[in-house]
Amino acid sequence: MKIIKNIDELRENLKKAKIEGKSIGLVPTMGYLHEGHASLIRRARKDNDIVVVSDFVNPIQFGPNEDLLTYPRDLEADSKICEEIGVDYIFAPEASEMYQDKKVFVDIEDMSDHLCGAKRPGHFRGVLTVCSKLFNITGADRAYFGQKDAQQVAIIKKLVSDLNIPIEIIPCPIVREEDGLALSSRNTYLSKEERKAALCLSKAIFAGEKLAKEGGSVEEVIEKMEEIIDSEELSKIDYISVVNLKTMEDANDFDGDRLVAIAVYIGKTRLIDNFIYRS
Amino acid sequence: MKIIKNIDELRENLKKAKIEGKSIGLVPTMGYLHEGHASLIRRARKDNDIVVVSDFVNPIQFGPNEDLLTYPRDLEADSKICEEIGVDYIFAPEASEMYQDKKVFVDIEDMSDHLCGAKRPGHFRGVLTVCSKLFNITGADRAYFGQKDAQQVAIIKKLVSDLNIPIEIIPCPIVREEDGLALSSRNTYLSKEERKAALCLSKAIFAGEKLAKEGGSVEEVIEKMEEIIDSEELSKIDYISVVNLKTMEDANDFDGDRLVAIAVYIGKTRLIDNFIYRS
Repeated sequence: MKIIKNIDELRENLKKAKIEGKSIGLVPTMGYLHEGHASLIRRARKDNDIVVVSDFVNPIQFGPNEDLLTYPRDLEADSKICEEIGVDYIFAPEASEMYQDKKVFVDIEDMSDHLCGAKRPGHFRGVLTVCSKLFNITGADRAYFGQKDAQQVAIIKKLVSDLNIPIEIIPCPIVREEDGLALSSRNTYLSKEERKAALCLSKAIFAGEKLAKEGGSVEEVIEKMEEIIDSEELSKIDYISVVNLKTMEDANDFDGDRLVAIAVYIGKTRLIDNFIYRS
Repeated sequence: MKIIKNIDELRENLKKAKIEGKSIGLVPTMGYLHEGHASLIRRARKDNDIVVVSDFVNPIQFGPNEDLLTYPRDLEADSKICEEIGVDYIFAPEASEMYQDKKVFVDIEDMSDHLCGAKRPGHFRGVLTVCSKLFNITGADRAYFGQKDAQQVAIIKKLVSDLNIPIEIIPCPIVREEDGLALSSRNTYLSKEERKAALCLSKAIFAGEKLAKEGGSVEEVIEKMEEIIDSEELSKIDYISVVNLKTMEDANDFDGDRLVAIAVYIGKTRLIDNFIYRS
C-alpha cells in the first residue's frame, strides 16, 4: 500500500492500471476511519482491481463556525485499517495541494435547500467540488458512500447524472454500534454522558421506521421521533424531516420512496441519522 | 463519419477507441461552422486519432434577452464541412438530451465578473457546465477553442485546472476575413451596410495592437480604439478592456501578459474581437 500526497503522483500510479483495463474503486473519506468507512472499503475491495481511499478533511465543506480545526485526524491509524483491508493507495493531500487559487466550483440548485443544506450553507457546494476533483483525479469506475449521509448520496448521484461523469455511485448501509448509535467520526467528541444521550437518535430512527411501516402518517412519525429525542435532556433537535428520496423535497405522505432524516445536537456535537422508507 | 444525437451512443462508439489507446480530440461548437471552426477541426484532425465535433446550441449560456431562438443553425452544411476535414463523429444532441431536470452546475468566481461575464450574467456558468458535460461524455484527451473567445479560453483553462479534469485545452488563433473581420456565426446577422461598419472592430484591434507594441499606455490604447469605433455611425461600444490574461482582472499597464478585448454592437448584433499583448 502506498500513501500518496501529490495529485500527479497518484495519477501516474493509476495510469498504468487504467491502461491495463483494471477497475478502480474510490472511497472518499475525511479520515479518522471507523467501522462505517471500513465497510465501504471492504465493499470497494470486493468490487475492484484497485482500491483508492482518499483521506482528506475538505476545508471548503465546513462553514465558518463549524469544526474544521478540531475535526479529528489520525493518518497513522487510518493507514493500519486500510492496509489490513488491502487498500492499494491512500490519497492524503494537503489542502494547498487540492486548492490553489480556487475559483471554479460545482453547486446544486434546490436539492441542497433542505435538511443539512439549509442548516449548513455552502456545505454541499464544498462536497460537490471536492468529489468532482477526486473523481477526475482518480478516474475511478466506482465510488462508495455511506447511506448515513443520505442527502449527500442523493446529491452526488445527481452530480454524476447531470454532469455525465463516467462513474458509478454505490451507497452502502449505515453501520451502527451494538447499542444502535450510527458510526461517525464526530462521535469522538462525545463525553461519556453525551455518548449515552446520543442513543436518542437511533431510538427515534427505529421507532419512526416501525411506525411508518405500520402505516403512521408523516405527522405521527415526526411527532413520535420528536417525543423520543426531546425526552433526552442533553439533546436539541436541529431538524426532523421527511423528504422525497430522489428530489429531497419535503413530503407530506409515505406514497413513494422517502428519506426520514434527523440532525440533533448532543451538547455541542451535531449528529445525524436516517432511515429510508420504500413504498 | 457518424452523426450521433444520443449521449450513450456516442460513449459506446468512443469506448472502443479509448480501450485501444487511441487519442480523442474534441471541438465544441454551437454549429453554423465557418472557417474559424474549420481551423480548429483541422488542428484536431492533425493531433488526434479520433475527432469529435459537438454541434449544440447550448441554451443555458444564453440570457433571457439574447439570441437563442434566432441563433443560426445548419447541421447539413456543418456535416459537409466536417466530412471534408475527416471528422469521425458529429455529436448533435437535442437540448432535452443534454438537460433533463438539470440541478447541478459549474461556475466560477471573480474571472467571470469582467468583460463578457459582466455583460452576460450566467453566460459563463452555462459555458462551464456544458463543457464539463462534453469533456465527461467524450473523455477527450484534447479540446480546441478559438482565441476569439479569449475570456472563454481563460475560464475553461481554469475549469480544467481547478477541477483536475484530465484534458488538454488548446487555444487556436483568430481567423479573419480578408478585410480583417473576425469570423463569427453572428456575422450572418449583419446587413450589407452593417457588414461594412463591422470592420471598425478589427481596425481598432490592429491599431490598438500597434500602439501597445510601440509603447502606448493602456489609456492611450483604449482612447485610440474608442476613436476608431466611435467614428463608425452604426457602432455602439459595449466595452473596451485591458485585463490580465490569466486572472481577467483589469490592468492599468502593459507590464505582463494582457488581453485587450472589445465588444461592440453593430446595429443589434453584438460582436467581439481581441488581441493578446505579451510583455
